[in-house]
Amino acid sequence: MEHIVFRSALLSDVPAIVALLADDELGSQREITGTPLDQRYVDAFDAIEADANQRLVVVVDGNEVIGTLQISFIPGIARMGAWRGQIEAVRIAAHRRDSGLGHKMFEWAISECRSRACSLVQLTTDKSRTDAHRFYEKLASHEGYKLAL
Amino acid sequence: MEHIVFRSALLSDVPAIVALLADDELGSQREITGTPLDQRYVDAFDAIEADANQRLVVVVDGNEVIGTLQISFIPGIARMGAWRGQIEAVRIAAHRRDSGLGHKMFEWAISECRSRACSLVQLTTDKSRTDAHRFYEKLASHEGYKLAL
Repeated sequence: MEHIVFRSALLSDVPAIVALLADDELGSQREITGTPLDQRYVDAFDAIEADANQRLVVVVDGNEVIGTLQISFIPGIARMGAWRGQIEAVRIAAHRRDSGLGHKMFEWAISECRSRACSLVQLTTDKSRTDAHRFYEKLASHEGYKLAL
Repeated sequence: MEHIVFRSALLSDVPAIVALLADDELGSQREITGTPLDQRYVDAFDAIEADANQRLVVVVDGNEVIGTLQISFIPGIARMGAWRGQIEAVRIAAHRRDSGLGHKMFEWAISECRSRACSLVQLTTDKSRTDAHRFYEKLASHEGYKLAL
């Protein structure tokens, strides 16, 4: 685990991110992997890059992308004008699951949310992702998996 | 209902928005109403205004703000680079509840998400908001209340 690095995703990481998204039961029906990269993914990456309140992240071990997640920093009036951090699109390479990497990724993401002065972190996931739900239930106390910071 | 207008919120609407947010069991403990408006609300309004992917909306009847909601337009890589619309901070003035206004507001918000080419709408709400949950359960089919467009 000691060589793992968290960093903002580059356009050159997008094929690996798409491969991670496609590597599960739901994702395999939703994504198009392979080269050349579908233009819609490039457009999406550009839209994320253009928005200072979005952060697309990869977790790398050497040259290999072993995980990805996205944080959306959302301003709002409620709770005295609180910012919230929303963590989505969390994926871990199959051969690195059950290694504690998921917890490490959430710890890192929550710490990023704190550093952006968010007072709330929230998660959403598909009902059919029972593994993710078991994991999130331990982390959070609200429907929609909101976690007060 | 025919005189109801949906429009982007102005700074001058923020006190009315805060009053709506404060007018429920959870919100009354979280917000500070009254004048002068707390600076944190002004900062939050500025942050929303500065982000082209945030839209804070009021529903007005004549000069009265009778409802509010916020839509966050979130770009992402998943689902072929799909945009999603997230609807939050939905509030309706107490004397206008149970009038069909909630449905009208969601219809309007979902139509805004379509016009921004979102392929998914999602909602989150506090577990303790049982009324909101009953309403959302009818609208959506996913945990975290995601609705495919």
